[in-house]
Amino acid sequence: MASPSPVPASMAKPSEPVRNKRHDPKKPHITEEPITRSNWYKHVNWLNVTLIVGVPIYGLFAAYWTPLQLKTAVWAIAYYFMTGLGITAGYHRLWAHTSYSARLPLKIFLAAVGAGAVEGSIRWWSRDHRAHHRYTDTDKDPYSVRKGLIYSHFGWMIMKQNPKRIGRTDISDLNDDPVVVWQHRNYIKCVIFMGMIFPCLVTGLGWGDWKGGFIYAGILRIFFVQQATFCVNSLAHWLGDQPFDDRNSPRDHVITALVTLGEGYHNFHHEFPSDYRNAIEWHQYDPTKWSIWIWKQLGLAYDLKQFKQNEIEKGRLQQLQKKLDQKRQTLDWGIPLEQLPIVDWEEYQSEAKNGRALVAVAGVVHDVTDFIKDHPGGKALISSGIGKDATAIFNGGVYNHSNAAHNLLSTMRVGVLRGGCEVEIWKRAQRENKDISFVSD
Amino acid sequence: MASPSPVPASMAKPSEPVRNKRHDPKKPHITEEPITRSNWYKHVNWLNVTLIVGVPIYGLFAAYWTPLQLKTAVWAIAYYFMTGLGITAGYHRLWAHTSYSARLPLKIFLAAVGAGAVEGSIRWWSRDHRAHHRYTDTDKDPYSVRKGLIYSHFGWMIMKQNPKRIGRTDISDLNDDPVVVWQHRNYIKCVIFMGMIFPCLVTGLGWGDWKGGFIYAGILRIFFVQQATFCVNSLAHWLGDQPFDDRNSPRDHVITALVTLGEGYHNFHHEFPSDYRNAIEWHQYDPTKWSIWIWKQLGLAYDLKQFKQNEIEKGRLQQLQKKLDQKRQTLDWGIPLEQLPIVDWEEYQSEAKNGRALVAVAGVVHDVTDFIKDHPGGKALISSGIGKDATAIFNGGVYNHSNAAHNLLSTMRVGVLRGGCEVEIWKRAQRENKDISFVSD
Ligand code: HEM
Ligand code: HEM
Ligand SMILES: [Fe+2]
Ligand SMILES: [Fe+2]
Ligand SMILES: [Fe+2]
Ligand SMILES: [Fe+2]
Repeated sequence: MASPSPVPASMAKPSEPVRNKRHDPKKPHITEEPITRSNWYKHVNWLNVTLIVGVPIYGLFAAYWTPLQLKTAVWAIAYYFMTGLGITAGYHRLWAHTSYSARLPLKIFLAAVGAGAVEGSIRWWSRDHRAHHRYTDTDKDPYSVRKGLIYSHFGWMIMKQNPKRIGRTDISDLNDDPVVVWQHRNYIKCVIFMGMIFPCLVTGLGWGDWKGGFIYAGILRIFFVQQATFCVNSLAHWLGDQPFDDRNSPRDHVITALVTLGEGYHNFHHEFPSDYRNAIEWHQYDPTKWSIWIWKQLGLAYDLKQFKQNEIEKGRLQQLQKKLDQKRQTLDWGIPLEQLPIVDWEEYQSEAKNGRALVAVAGVVHDVTDFIKDHPGGKALISSGIGKDATAIFNGGVYNHSNAAHNLLSTMRVGVLRGGCEVEIWKRAQRENKDISFVSD
Repeated sequence: MASPSPVPASMAKPSEPVRNKRHDPKKPHITEEPITRSNWYKHVNWLNVTLIVGVPIYGLFAAYWTPLQLKTAVWAIAYYFMTGLGITAGYHRLWAHTSYSARLPLKIFLAAVGAGAVEGSIRWWSRDHRAHHRYTDTDKDPYSVRKGLIYSHFGWMIMKQNPKRIGRTDISDLNDDPVVVWQHRNYIKCVIFMGMIFPCLVTGLGWGDWKGGFIYAGILRIFFVQQATFCVNSLAHWLGDQPFDDRNSPRDHVITALVTLGEGYHNFHHEFPSDYRNAIEWHQYDPTKWSIWIWKQLGLAYDLKQFKQNEIEKGRLQQLQKKLDQKRQTLDWGIPLEQLPIVDWEEYQSEAKNGRALVAVAGVVHDVTDFIKDHPGGKALISSGIGKDATAIFNGGVYNHSNAAHNLLSTMRVGVLRGGCEVEIWKRAQRENKDISFVSD
């Protein structure tokens, strides 16, 4: 159970924020005091330490003396996937993001197995998760990765947090959902039954392996489900690409997807949070999406929300454009035209006659002296342009030079011809020094 | 031997173009007559058919009765690589493109093994190849892929070509190179000795396998070297990506590189023809580049030419930009602002009051009626913007919306507010309808 207030107020009225009954808003919260040698233990959330770290360590030791039966192993893995889906398909995509709608039986199933993952009630989890989306990477983000990878993974649960710090969000829809409210009110019972008793019952009544069910399908399975889903807050904000937006931390990576039942395309997810998919390509791993799709075929899920492909492509394109514009800044495009001296035609010709290898192309004078010997088209041809207006020669008259040749030419600029080809100059400037602002407007 | 005029004029003066002695410029060339049932055989270059197709078929049959000794196989493969390098490192990168300089011993070696590949003299090969670069994909290109893949592979040698059609190029540097001139004048002797006699001598004197040397290291090795290097004209203009320029046919592909001793990064090569490399990444396969580099370490090669990384990156960037601009055209960015009706503030408010869900952001009025139920931030928040100037709310006042949200918003435009936020309107127009011309200037 991962709530900062370990025992959620079981009688909370539908619209009232969850507050620990023991928390007195008038008394300063412990987090308002700096951590010192004498008070550090007061900053630690000992209940969460016990649940997230202590119990699993006990489980590991106990496993050493508990033989693992094949049937129990299969059940533990199956229940791992079911409780994981409770979080990803239930808590996350259904309730936190309402990315699809579910019929009552599916809702009850997801609320039940979700409780079995021991990560708090739907209501508490979704409220925090909505704050995470709305205030991503800021101080109001309950698990901001800007405070460190460990913090975003489980540091935020192990150390006490000031409830006033977390951003407020609208959860009126959840307060109107009877399954959510019932699960929240009966959370402790749910978690004990679905987290521990039910997996033991299966192994115990099924094949008499009570102890194996307790250790493997109970304690250790909870540990793995927790660690896996915690990765959505840590790994998914730390490892991978940012194809849609790089202003915030969410990232796409197949490793995160493999660990988190498909929640690894997190840059996409933060950009399109109410899309029931996290992976949009068929070949990407997103078993949560596949499950929702199957439930739809079975009539258990409906109204699957999807952003239009047009909107997705636009986002991808803008991010690529941004990267290109950044890259463009780092390259040398030659001296900007407006910083070049203005040269008269006569001046150009007399300098060229005096032995400087100057070539005029599109109203701009270029010094090609050092390049003649390297010219891919040979010395004779390039020399034929010296002292002339070589615009036509260069642009197809003799040879239609490549983009590469145009780029290279612009690094050899030394002057602008007075009155020469303004349109060409303007076109070139536009191509090279494009000033596109991607500030949010 | 792959020359359209099979026996090069052995006495050609250094600067005079190679012309078949039997060719009378006054008589109309056979290619000026259409191919008919009665004259088709006159269009075929029977000598080349014999050399490129006939002899290898004989070799294949003969191989059936000629046991292949291991030593002979090893030598045939080694000589395959040597003669292949004669073409790629010698004919192509050294002489046709002068992408590096070689000391006399290396020149003699490359001229010798190059002759052993039986693809014409350096002088003839380079002249055609320069025409191929200068007139790529046009009628003056001797092996234009626009005439079909088979034509570019060897059709251009199997059918007679009108020598007047091939583009003229400057080969004065080759005419000044004694190795090139000597090889051209003694081409028939060179080709018979290096193509057949020398490989037989090695196997015959070495381990008594005269016949195996003849068939495997001679005939079949020639066939494979020819087919491999022909792929530079066919496959490299047909298969793969175009990271630098997509106006012409050259393409980059690892398969072509594997077949052609590294000449497979052909889009790069046409853009930067005088670069001694074809592959610019260390992990790409370019044994020709590696050989030149080793020769440099041995003092046999010098002045290795390389385009600056800055120029290469600029080319790649522009091609990417071009692709993005094309993609941008295919997407729906909403009704252009200049096509929207101008709306007064009072009009906007009264319409919003009458039940139409209108939200004004940055001087533009949006109809969000169909979107309210799908809003990822909930119905309440989006509804709070109706009938207001929601610019600040939308841009961080309540929530700093993502690029995706901005994009989606623009597809919901229905009007422009009179006098509202012109700068914002202009910024948005610039971002979406960028009109960047990539015409060659
Ligand atoms: C003005 C007279 C010029 C003429 C007639 C001329 C002609 C040619 C020809 C015929 C080629 C084709 C060679 C081949 O690919 O094998 C060529 C290539 C090239 N030229 Fe020029 N050139 C001229 C000036 C310049 C100048 C001033 C530059 C400076 C940047 C330049 C840069 C290049 C480059 C980079 C290539 C490689 C192929 C390409 O990128 O298009 N040339 N030139
Ligand atoms: C004007 C008042 C609005 C307010 C106060 C508001 C508020 C919010 C909030 C708080 C979120 C965060 C929800 C989350 O990520 O969990 C959000 C998300 C979003 N809103 Fe709004 N919204 C408003 C209008 C609109 C409009 C008119 C659109 C139409 C395009 C829109 C499109 C979106 C989208 C696409 C998201 C998903 C996250 C993102 O892309 O940033 N919103 N909104
Ligand atoms: Fe996240
Ligand atoms: Fe989420
Ligand atoms: Fe080519
Ligand atoms: Fe070439």
